[in-house]
Amino acid sequence: MTASSTSCLPDSESIRKTWQKLTGIVKQTPVLTSETLNILTGSKLFFKCENFQKAGAFKFRGASSALLHISDDQAAKGVCTHSSGNHAQALALAAKIRGLKAFIVMPENAPEVKVNAVRDYGGQITFCMPTLEARESTLEEVRKATGALFIHPYNNYNIIRGQAGCFYEILQQMDEEPDYIIAPLGGGGLLAGTILSAKYFTKKTRVIGAEPLNANDAWKSFREKRFIPSESPLTIADGLKTSLGTKTYPIIMEHVEDIITATEQGIIDAMFLVWERMKLVIEPSAAVPLAALMENPERFQNKKTGIILSGGNTDLRRIPWLENRYHH
Amino acid sequence: MTASSTSCLPDSESIRKTWQKLTGIVKQTPVLTSETLNILTGSKLFFKCENFQKAGAFKFRGASSALLHISDDQAAKGVCTHSSGNHAQALALAAKIRGLKAFIVMPENAPEVKVNAVRDYGGQITFCMPTLEARESTLEEVRKATGALFIHPYNNYNIIRGQAGCFYEILQQMDEEPDYIIAPLGGGGLLAGTILSAKYFTKKTRVIGAEPLNANDAWKSFREKRFIPSESPLTIADGLKTSLGTKTYPIIMEHVEDIITATEQGIIDAMFLVWERMKLVIEPSAAVPLAALMENPERFQNKKTGIILSGGNTDLRRIPWLENRYHH
Repeated sequence: MTASSTSCLPDSESIRKTWQKLTGIVKQTPVLTSETLNILTGSKLFFKCENFQKAGAFKFRGASSALLHISDDQAAKGVCTHSSGNHAQALALAAKIRGLKAFIVMPENAPEVKVNAVRDYGGQITFCMPTLEARESTLEEVRKATGALFIHPYNNYNIIRGQAGCFYEILQQMDEEPDYIIAPLGGGGLLAGTILSAKYFTKKTRVIGAEPLNANDAWKSFREKRFIPSESPLTIADGLKTSLGTKTYPIIMEHVEDIITATEQGIIDAMFLVWERMKLVIEPSAAVPLAALMENPERFQNKKTGIILSGGNTDLRRIPWLENRYHH
Repeated sequence: MTASSTSCLPDSESIRKTWQKLTGIVKQTPVLTSETLNILTGSKLFFKCENFQKAGAFKFRGASSALLHISDDQAAKGVCTHSSGNHAQALALAAKIRGLKAFIVMPENAPEVKVNAVRDYGGQITFCMPTLEARESTLEEVRKATGALFIHPYNNYNIIRGQAGCFYEILQQMDEEPDYIIAPLGGGGLLAGTILSAKYFTKKTRVIGAEPLNANDAWKSFREKRFIPSESPLTIADGLKTSLGTKTYPIIMEHVEDIITATEQGIIDAMFLVWERMKLVIEPSAAVPLAALMENPERFQNKKTGIILSGGNTDLRRIPWLENRYHH
């Protein structure tokens, strides 16, 4: 992959129009602030609450965007994906709202809470062995049997166009451009979308990606200027384990200001802070930007810095700081 | 006490002006909705997020209101109260913002997290034995030694005037009056304030108080039409254990539409629902209105119903549904 393969990039007009078309489908989530966290970090923070988004994460923006662009013929056959996480729920709900079928391939060890959520949203689940190979081959069988359109969780310009709406929306909600905006970084859909909106709609905002130190494939790629895949990383931030895709990699490599990382303990501590001080339930992946900022505070001193709280889907019966207490 | 002792009731103009004067001091908290909870309850719900209020609860409205009305001479001597809960934190922070001293009497067994919060806000703590008698006599000593003005947590018209701002603010944020508004009911400051704002600023909104079944002194008082005190109730909703006061009792008895109750399990279940589905950290007391609605759903079917999520100060190391799992 090279940084020049960006010929079909979503343009500014299509990002704006997609956001407008999704009014009333996608929630306009609030932007909140915390004086306590400003004092703790030395930055002037604001938080975009995508944990309040439908299906509990920003992924619903991308999934809804993807469904705007499919033909009537395709719509009749439905859509499909493989995911054990937020994309599965988001696609199932977006499809339900559009009146389409959604076929979701999930690993047989997926958490019950996530399986139930997909089922509640009307998704038709096919279970498979918990390997990427099994997921892909099972998806291929489902796709052939149903004719459903595969909606990739991030390596898809219609998905990126939807995720771009998150930062576009922030700009509509604020009086002035922030100095920085930090997005969590897994497959890169949210970060790539944020980069495009910053490029098109701001004069000065710099975009930072935040990754778990234990899943720092993009951090390495950025430093070594070549694609380095993610290799079965162990991190509590389960939404950020994937590799970049052929469509997100070049956008990020060309335009991101920097990629910063957070330790596992830092992620848990930041998650605790947001729950305790902001009274917001966020999932571990959503705590990674704040954790990375707190481990790399210098450049953010007195700067207006946005943090995307990407989602709130976490098992409330397994609280990280209590699991530590009870299991270690 | 009789329902006629309401001669010094806050009037509509003073409620409106107090709310306006506190702009920039008291947070304008968001109103959120949840399609999932609408489906679960059959009602058209909205939630006023006082868990996002400064110091983590609506109590900051009343405390800030009380400090608007003290003389310069009194201001020099500071304010005092006894409380192990949200009023202590709220008064300490409101005093700090006004540049006043706050003397807080707390029982020696108060949770460390609450003691630390009061101290962080600059409150000067005096510990006492954990009985109401000791709290009152220690407060009296502190008051005599310092000359500080006692700010009662609810039985004070300036406090009630401030709490009335919560529902007044809701009305500014909404396009139409709700059919019902439900407030949790302990000492009655928030409920009395809500009643006054409904009376002055709406045509049709009916106000409901929600109480733990295990602390149903106001429910009994309302049914028997006489004052019945709270007697050391055992409930997880630790903010709602107190008796009504001489100023809150008559307002509530005269104007409340009804008082409804919730079981302990219902409170925990409702708290879990709000955390899981709305991604909001609320304390047990704040879950009582939703719990009581879910145990008494009939009258709220298809009605626009507001719920005041009164606060979010709960020990995140002691999660009720996990305490049950680990300790039973």
